[in-house]
This record gives sequence, structure tokens and C-alpha cells, in this order.
Amino acid sequence: MDKILRIDMGAEGGPKATVSPIGAYAALGGRGLTSSIVAKEVDPLCHPLSAGNKLVIAPGLLSGSIAAMSGRISVGCKSPLTGGIKEANAGGQPSQMLARLGYAAIVLEGKPKENALYKVFINKDGVKIVEDKSLKMLSNYQVVEKMKGEFGDKVACISIGQAGEMRLPAASVAFTDMELRPTRHAGRGGVGAVMGSKGVKVIIIDDAGQPTRQPKDPEKFRAANMKFIEGLRTHAVTGQALPSYGTNVLTNIINEAGGYPTYNFKHGRFLGAAKISGETFAEIETKRGGLATHGCHTGCVIRCSGIYNDKDGHFLSKQPEYETVWSHGGNCGIDDPDKIAMLDFLDDDIGLDTIEMGATIGVAMDAGVIKFGDADGAINLIKEVGKGTPLGRIIGSGAAIAGKVFGVEKVPVVKGQALPAYDPRAVHGIGVTYATSPMGADHTAGYAVATNILKVGGEVDPLKPEGQVELSRNLQIATAAIDSTGMCIFIAFAIMDQPETFQALLDMLNAFYGLELTAEGVAELGKKILKTERHFNTRAGFSQHHDRLPGFFKTESLPPHNIIFQVKDEELDVIFNW
Amino acid sequence: MDKILRIDMGAEGGPKATVSPIGAYAALGGRGLTSSIVAKEVDPLCHPLSAGNKLVIAPGLLSGSIAAMSGRISVGCKSPLTGGIKEANAGGQPSQMLARLGYAAIVLEGKPKENALYKVFINKDGVKIVEDKSLKMLSNYQVVEKMKGEFGDKVACISIGQAGEMRLPAASVAFTDMELRPTRHAGRGGVGAVMGSKGVKVIIIDDAGQPTRQPKDPEKFRAANMKFIEGLRTHAVTGQALPSYGTNVLTNIINEAGGYPTYNFKHGRFLGAAKISGETFAEIETKRGGLATHGCHTGCVIRCSGIYNDKDGHFLSKQPEYETVWSHGGNCGIDDPDKIAMLDFLDDDIGLDTIEMGATIGVAMDAGVIKFGDADGAINLIKEVGKGTPLGRIIGSGAAIAGKVFGVEKVPVVKGQALPAYDPRAVHGIGVTYATSPMGADHTAGYAVATNILKVGGEVDPLKPEGQVELSRNLQIATAAIDSTGMCIFIAFAIMDQPETFQALLDMLNAFYGLELTAEGVAELGKKILKTERHFNTRAGFSQHHDRLPGFFKTESLPPHNIIFQVKDEELDVIFNW
Repeated sequence: MDKILRIDMGAEGGPKATVSPIGAYAALGGRGLTSSIVAKEVDPLCHPLSAGNKLVIAPGLLSGSIAAMSGRISVGCKSPLTGGIKEANAGGQPSQMLARLGYAAIVLEGKPKENALYKVFINKDGVKIVEDKSLKMLSNYQVVEKMKGEFGDKVACISIGQAGEMRLPAASVAFTDMELRPTRHAGRGGVGAVMGSKGVKVIIIDDAGQPTRQPKDPEKFRAANMKFIEGLRTHAVTGQALPSYGTNVLTNIINEAGGYPTYNFKHGRFLGAAKISGETFAEIETKRGGLATHGCHTGCVIRCSGIYNDKDGHFLSKQPEYETVWSHGGNCGIDDPDKIAMLDFLDDDIGLDTIEMGATIGVAMDAGVIKFGDADGAINLIKEVGKGTPLGRIIGSGAAIAGKVFGVEKVPVVKGQALPAYDPRAVHGIGVTYATSPMGADHTAGYAVATNILKVGGEVDPLKPEGQVELSRNLQIATAAIDSTGMCIFIAFAIMDQPETFQALLDMLNAFYGLELTAEGVAELGKKILKTERHFNTRAGFSQHHDRLPGFFKTESLPPHNIIFQVKDEELDVIFNW
Repeated sequence: MDKILRIDMGAEGGPKATVSPIGAYAALGGRGLTSSIVAKEVDPLCHPLSAGNKLVIAPGLLSGSIAAMSGRISVGCKSPLTGGIKEANAGGQPSQMLARLGYAAIVLEGKPKENALYKVFINKDGVKIVEDKSLKMLSNYQVVEKMKGEFGDKVACISIGQAGEMRLPAASVAFTDMELRPTRHAGRGGVGAVMGSKGVKVIIIDDAGQPTRQPKDPEKFRAANMKFIEGLRTHAVTGQALPSYGTNVLTNIINEAGGYPTYNFKHGRFLGAAKISGETFAEIETKRGGLATHGCHTGCVIRCSGIYNDKDGHFLSKQPEYETVWSHGGNCGIDDPDKIAMLDFLDDDIGLDTIEMGATIGVAMDAGVIKFGDADGAINLIKEVGKGTPLGRIIGSGAAIAGKVFGVEKVPVVKGQALPAYDPRAVHGIGVTYATSPMGADHTAGYAVATNILKVGGEVDPLKPEGQVELSRNLQIATAAIDSTGMCIFIAFAIMDQPETFQALLDMLNAFYGLELTAEGVAELGKKILKTERHFNTRAGFSQHHDRLPGFFKTESLPPHNIIFQVKDEELDVIFNW
């Protein structure tokens, strides 16, 4: 992982690959690397679909090693959805494989001639870039199936569906899982549209013949990894809740807490919650011969993923995440697990952010395009996106644009990006993260739900403004650092509660790189990343006035607690004054 | 004009009108008044379609008097298109009539219950607000015809078409002309969507029994007005070019100068220009029994308007303005005057900004939705807007949104508003105005074309960056002041070249109000207005990074001069440091 692969898609005579040493970006990985490259090399005022934007795909610092949970990958660029800097994060196999091939990052630059579409094959012998017209407007599942035919089933794929090719602002980048299915997505911020603008349909990675990455101090590293795994296995969230029911264990919890946004953020509880809870999904999955527990990448010990089969026992989709179940479920008044799994599959197949899609359909429902609860109508809307009809293109452009096109006032977005599955009025801490994250509304950027609702890492009353800014600040700093390691963010539950597990993570990093990193050093890294990202955003035209929730959160109270969001603007404005 | 009519559309029990003294807003009119009210009373971060936004309609300081050219009216609000402050300006009869009824402004506030639609009747006896379901989704021509049936043909109307009711970001507010036709539009920035969100379909104004407004010094006022008219009649632009051919006299001039944006800003000259020039339109109008010279409001002495009949001699539209002929013509590769007149009619009827529509169709053509030159396709796209289909809603949302939805990189907008009919690469001064005006790209905000191309008010080389910032600064200041007087901006041609005509304007203001206003005083007023508007925009989240042209103007050179826009960012940033 000491080299960067740059592909100039607009080079004279066709795309040109160059491999160079990591140089000035050494000691950076994942989000730290993507954000540093974007901030340094991309004009913050460039059009997101222009040759000047870059798409950076980077494994984390520990990816490709034997470290548990180290299979996450970061995708960075100037976002077509927010207009600011973006890092979207995914699981799957490509992270470990790219890392083992020695690449700290792939950087797609420039812009090819109109309508040219390429596949990029990377293995230990180098890089091949081939134009392939037959890939046009294939879905993610179709393109991966085709690549399997060409390159065998030992590869991993990074691809876009029709949405990315159409450069829609809600398009995702798909990463294949252990079954070589395009189920893991860097979903947020339209990163798929940027990949589409670069004319890259699919990157095929083959790490055959490449060894696992070796730490500087193998003994210390192995011991730390064991301790780390032990910590994850003994924590209630990472050892029990997530393995048993996946992230969707949260449906009942957040609904009970009154923070489950229902009918486009009108209510905090959904009557149909039990029908679409993680418990219900697990039961269906087990009964139909799917899997209720499953890892999204090699080396995962939490195994919060799963496989959802249809009534006939055939694969329908991976186990939908909590935010997907919420966005297409409660937020749209839909309580049918099969329909939600179908929506999850369609989003993955067409290459769309599930959070953005559910929020957008909620806005369309508010506009009367279809009715709340109309599951078949929702499925049809997503299918329209795949077809590229005008209606589909509106939906695929996300909630902010759909709100303007449909003339809707109530649009749950920050910096143009849709709010995820936690209402900021009932979970104040996450509201602070939504408002202030350089990414736009993003629950993963500082998951205050942990401390507000799950009582992990302490306890801060979710219904009150006190302590939320400090909580979100600390979480945003820690998250920026974790997102650089290649570690799944779910390790945070354990390391927030168990000092020894956090120490084990530090020990792994230190043993791998021969460092003497402390907790303070990790915090410094997180701060540096946030500062880099915010500096980019300032130059892209963002000010403190963009660090705000939509007005209705401060004027319309949310049942059942009947409260509004109470954190003051002045408090939000000091969150990055550390 | 010493009172303000406020209508709270969201009042308990239904809309409620209140008339109050002008108070703190005294001595303000037109844009000065709309911008002051919006900046003081509207939360810059509110949703443009929310109850918190206000729609302010204000005649100018001299409107309702015998002063020539004083029939302009300003419409202000937070813009749904730009997200910043907006003043859109129109001619027609309502300005004079509202002024004679004594209203300095109508302010629409609050928000009615869902889907309620009202008509507002104003005469000397007061204000009547009536819900009228029969008005739903009528076009502007239809609603005005209906009001004529109810209120007779001595009234004037301010109305919205289907676009405003659908709250589309490119919706205009229509004002009737002397023939009681809805041909004069406050077009820019989506002011019609805000009127739609207030549930007001039409305002009917009847000034029967109201005398002309009387100046404090009638003798001095009358003498100044005579001098003012004399100046307008002797200037080549206001005395000859505009009366003979209307604003469309510019087609040949700008095309010859190489600054006529063609095929979505790809070229600076259009081969079909002669076929759609002002000279050609005038010939057709005269031949078919229309009018090549005509005033848009009582008291106009320039008479740059006209009436365009179809082949059978029936009214098709008013004489389309230069910017309309350009946007639907050269910008879309269309050179058929009848088709352009039909597009003009449809825009007026549905209630759409003609500049935004032409620019949006140009973007759609770049995306391949229809082909460049496809006039019937363009007509169909505008008809789709009226029908409210998904495709129509995309088009009615303007160029910036259409660019995102169709995945197009080349989108000619500043602050979300489409560039008008002058390419900034060949007319550098107007590029400075586009980039820096608080209104977004707007040629009327500081019409540097006058000095760059027409050699009015001096001479500044249009192809060079030197002197353009100073030119645009002075014009933006002067324009803000003129837009407050109710005077048509075309008086600027004469007052820039003739010191005695400018003095006559000052004398009129002084005689009317008993003031001692000097040229410096006028400049101070203009500066104060710009400062107020910019302060609002800063609080709405705008920074210097939004005072920029789209990147392609700095990277793609424009034939035939083959130059890029060369004014430096640092120079743009000092334009308001006076």
C-alpha cells in the first residue's frame, strides 16, 4: 500500500494508467486519504461532473492485513449531490484485495470522449483499460455477472448501475461481497455519478498470488487483533444485537424511543414497525433458507449482514440495513418486508443510495405523486429510475431536487443530502451531526444515537440540547479517524465502552506501522481530516449558514414527545472550535 | 403611496388584509422597498415556499404620476430559484394603478390551508379576498379573460399561470398591459412560485375614481418631465432603435459582435440570426396587421413593445423581447419567428420566465432530450410544463435543476439562475454583472452591454478584462436606484449620454417629493440597496465563492473571437468595495 494508481480518462489516445509512490500522502488511508487528495487536487468550484473532479477509491490503513473488520473502503470526490467534499464508505471484498495489490488508492481523473464506457482490470501484473460498449446501461447485478463470465469468480468488482451512467445525483458505487454480489455500496452523495462521468463502468480486481499484508511486528499485531476480537465478541451490541438481527435491530429500539421518522418526518413512531423489525426479518430469513447472520467481507467477526430470500427460497436481496428498511418502510408508510427487500435489491441493482431514495419517495408521496403506503408505487418509481424516464430521473436526483421539482416545502435535507433514519427532534445528538458534518446529513459521521439511545459511551438525554454538541464533536473526530483505518464503524460500540479494546486497536496500528500512536494522536488525525474537509467546503461556498437543519425541525413538533429541535445556532457554530 | 397593504394568507379564519402607514419604509419605492422589506422581515434561511417568506409587489417612487416611463413594478421575495434575495421587474398597467390607489406595496404573508386558491380585488373602497376553486390551473390568458368577465375591462391584473400554482422555480408573475393581456412578466427567480405558495391566483386592481398622483411642485415637475421626454426622443437608442425594432434590434448587433450565445453557449454567432432579427420581426408584424411599435404601459414614450399576429392576422403574442428571441432562438438553434412567437405566448400563458425556459431547453438539447433546432420539440416541452408532467416539471424548474436531472456538465447559471443573451466571453462587462449581482445572472442588474457594445456612456473594450469591474459596479449602483423610481431601465441609455436628461430625472424626483436629491444621493441610494441585498444573501449562505461564472467560461474559448472570460476572481471580489 505504498503506491497510487492514477487513471487519466481524458488522456490523448485514450485512458492512461500511471502508478506512482504514495509520496506526500504517506501514512494516510481511507477517508483521510480520499479527503486529502480531493482537497489538494480538486478545484472546489469545479462542476462535479467535469474533468477537474477526481474519484478517489481508497482502502484503509489496516485493510489487506489479518486485522478483523478491516475491509471497509472509502470513495471520495466533490459531490454532485451536496456540492461539497464527499467520502462515502462501503464494505465488501475490494478493500482487502486492492490493499494486497499494494494500492493505497485508485484515482480516476479527467474525462473520456463523449459516451465512451470502460472496464478496468487490475491484478498483480498491472492495469488494463478496455472500452466495452456491451456494458452500456447494464445494472450492477448484470455487469458483475458478465465480469464473472470473463474473469472468473475469484475477482471482486467495483461498479455502477444505470443511475451512475446517467450521472444522477443519488447514484452509488457498488462493491461486491463474498458471494460476488454487488450488495455493498458507497451510497451517499452521488459518488456513482462521478464514476459515470469518468466513463468507468466497472473495475475488476484480482489479487491472485498476493500475500496478506505483513505488519512490522507480527507477534504484537496478532496478539492485539485477538484482544480486539475478544472485545467485539463480549460487547452487547457487536457481540449479540448486530450478529442476531443486523442493523435492523434498531427498528424496534428507535421506534420505541419515538425517534423513528414516519410519513416524511411527520411522526416519531410507526404503527407497522414490528412487521419490519430486525427480529421479523431474521425470522423470515431463517425460515426461507436465507441467512440471518453473515459477514459482508472476509475478516468480519460482527457479521451483521444477511441474505433475504423470496417466498420460493430464491435470493431476493442481501439483508436490508436498518436505514434502508426505515427509508422505504416507515418513512413511506410501507410495512411489507418482501416489498422493502425488493426496493433494496432495485436500489443495489440500479446503483442508488437507499437512504436518498426512501427520503425522495417520501417527498414524492407528500407531493401526491403516489400515496403513503403504496409499496408497488414505490417499486415502480425506482424502476422508473432504471429506465431513465423523466419521472425516474427526478427520483434519482434525490430529495432536495425532487422537492423543488414537485414544489414541496417539507424536504428533510442538509447540504442537499437526505436525513437518515433518526429524527433530530427526538435524538438531538444526531441532529447536531446532520447539521454540521462536512458530508451533509449523515448518521455515520458522528453516530450520537449510540450515546443518546443505546447508552454506549455514556448517557446523554436524547430529548434535550445539553451536551449534544460536545458529544457530536467527539464522535465526528473519532469517526474521521476510524474511517481512515479501513475498520468498520461498528467497532466504535466496543471501543467506546471498553478501554482495552480501544487500546488493542491502537496496538494493531502501532504494530503494523511501527508507530507509537496514542489516543491523542488518533484524535489529532480525526481533527486534521475534518479541518481539511471543512476547508474544501468553505472554498466551495459553504458557510455556517449551511450548518443548519431545515426550518421545520424548529417549528413543527414531533409526536409522541411533541418537541422541536432545540440546539441553538450559536452552539452549532462552535462545534469545530476544539 | 403612503400605505402598505399586507395580506396574511394564513390568518385564523381565512386571509386577512391590513392597511398600515408606510412608516419606517418611507421614501422607498420599487426595488428599494421590496428589498428592504424582504431583508428586514424574511428569515434568510427560511424555505422559499414556507409561510415565512413574503411576496412584495411595489410600484416605483414616480409611478402613478404623469412622469413618462414610470410604469414599472418590482416583485421581491426570497427566490425559490437562487435561494437568495430577488427583485424581478415588469411593465404593464398595475404599477400606475396601485400607486394611484395609494399603495406603496402589497405584501403577501403567511400560507393558506392546503390547496386553497384566492382572488384579491383592490379598489378605492378597499380589499376583497375570495376563495375561487374555478381558477385552478387556469393559464394567465384564461384567468385574465375570466376576470374581465367579472370585473370589466377597466381593471388590471397581476396573476400566475399553471407554473406558479405548481410552485415551479421558473414561474413568473404576469402583469396585464394596456390591452388587458398578461404579457408583461416579473420573470426571473421564481417569484410566481412564491405567489403560488401564498395561494393567490390573481390580484385585480381597479383605480376608478382615483386621480393622478400630484407632485409637491407641479410646475417644476411638468417642465422636468418635458425635458426628460425630449432627451429620450433625441437619443439614438431610445428615440430610434427601440421604437422601430424593439429590444430585438439587438439580435443583429450582438450577433455581429460575436457575443450571441448559440447552441447552449457553444458559439458566439448564429447563422440564422437575420431570420429572427428585430428588423424581420417588425416587417412581419407590420405586414400581418400587428404593431411594430407599442407601449407596454400608459405613459411610455419609447414604445419598444409590439404585437405579433399569426399568418391569419390573429393575435399570437406580444412582440417577443430580444432575450426571449435569443433564448428560444439562437440558443436552441431555432430560426423560425412564428415558432419563437408561439414559445413566447406559451411562456406568458403558463407563467414562465422566457430566459430561464430557453436556457433550460438548451440544456435539455445538450442532454439529447430533443435536438438543437427542433422548434416543435421545444414547443412541446413548454406545453409539458403547463400539463405538469414529470418532464414538464423538470423544464419548469430551470436550467440548474434540469442540468442535474439530465446529468449535464455545461449549465450556464450563476447562483442557480440562467445567463441571459450575451456571452460573457465576448462581452466581459456583462459577465462581471452576471457573476456578482445579488440577483444571480441578470443582464438588467448592470447592463454593461451598453458601454461594451453600444458605446453608450463611454466605451470599454468588450473583449478585455480592463475596466469591466468598475463599469459593472457603477451600472449596478445606478440600476438599483433606477429600479426604485418605477422608471423603465431603458431611460438609462439617454441619461448615461445626456447630463441634462439625468438632471431632468433628478428634478422630477425633487419636484415630486420636495427633495434636494443630487447625483451623489442617487448613487447612495443604489449602494444602500445593494448592501441590503448582499447582507441578506450572506445570511442565506452566499459567499464570494458564489460570485463566479460557471467554470466552462474560463476553460472553453468562444468562437469567433476564440477567447475565454478573463476577469480575475480577485477583481470580482472587490466590486462592492466602493
